[in-house]
Amino acid sequence: MAMPRSGAPARARLREAALELYGEQGFDATTTAEIAARAGVTERTYFRHFVDKREVLFDGERELIDTMTAAIASAPAGLPPLALVLRAYGAAVPLFVAGRPVAERRARIIETSPALRERAHAKSATLTEALTGALGTRGIPEPTARLAARAGAAVFEHGSGAWDGVTAADLTALITQAADELGRLATELP
Amino acid sequence: MAMPRSGAPARARLREAALELYGEQGFDATTTAEIAARAGVTERTYFRHFVDKREVLFDGERELIDTMTAAIASAPAGLPPLALVLRAYGAAVPLFVAGRPVAERRARIIETSPALRERAHAKSATLTEALTGALGTRGIPEPTARLAARAGAAVFEHGSGAWDGVTAADLTALITQAADELGRLATELP
Repeated sequence: MAMPRSGAPARARLREAALELYGEQGFDATTTAEIAARAGVTERTYFRHFVDKREVLFDGERELIDTMTAAIASAPAGLPPLALVLRAYGAAVPLFVAGRPVAERRARIIETSPALRERAHAKSATLTEALTGALGTRGIPEPTARLAARAGAAVFEHGSGAWDGVTAADLTALITQAADELGRLATELP
Repeated sequence: MAMPRSGAPARARLREAALELYGEQGFDATTTAEIAARAGVTERTYFRHFVDKREVLFDGERELIDTMTAAIASAPAGLPPLALVLRAYGAAVPLFVAGRPVAERRARIIETSPALRERAHAKSATLTEALTGALGTRGIPEPTARLAARAGAAVFEHGSGAWDGVTAADLTALITQAADELGRLATELP
């Protein structure tokens, strides 16, 4: 049976083919030609979607950042910095829910390769910059904005670490609990 | 005049030679043989001190981690998690003061190379793990310990970003102020 050869379905098949091949034979040993072949597209199509071997594992980064910065831009006036950052993570919860089925496979692959770990760190840094910038447009000075963005990332990691990966409501509640815990940590200083 | 050829002075000269050469001709274009030659030692001596081209830029990581985890281990009973982390950063202030003269040159070189950026990120991750582990030995459960370690890192970045790089007292005060700011951020949630 012929399969569709381009657009979103091809992109999704390339992502899945890359996860499979990187998992089976390792990131370094896998070529874009092999990924394309398993996805049933040409290598040329691969490169229409992704610039290199790494990016196929980081699809959705732009959507995540756009979703989160839009949530900050559209927030009601007067929300304090960390509340804005948590609003941004809250807006991204559906994306985390959608991404969860492959998140662990993806994380295991990233862990195996310094080049992929660097890309993952760069993604975190890009998100911190984007959130810092979005807070800046809300009048929050840069050092405070950066502190709020980094604190928010720690809160999100804490909340999502306890998440079962199933419902958005649970993840949202866990982020709120993590923020409460940060509040306790940050105020019980001697 | 003959210069000492081994031990701590050689190590210090290798660090300086690497900073010079990486700055002058780039990290990728520089060989360990060139670094050794400029430091007046053999390449064999280079490899007695550093396992590869990257590590010469990350000397002192072990001392930093040992200093910080020792500060947590020796803290009075009853200090809450973030206070323990800030005590650890406080204990490391003399190391930051000592490292400051080369910190900017070093940071500029790291920025130019994905391999060095990965190494720097790995260093941050190693520190987070070490602090999380040290808090664990004080009875703090892992998710809370990790949140405190990450929050502490954000606080330190915030404080050191405003530092003029000169006195330890200033850096210590800036870390305290940054912790206060995190406390405000984390409690002004709606």
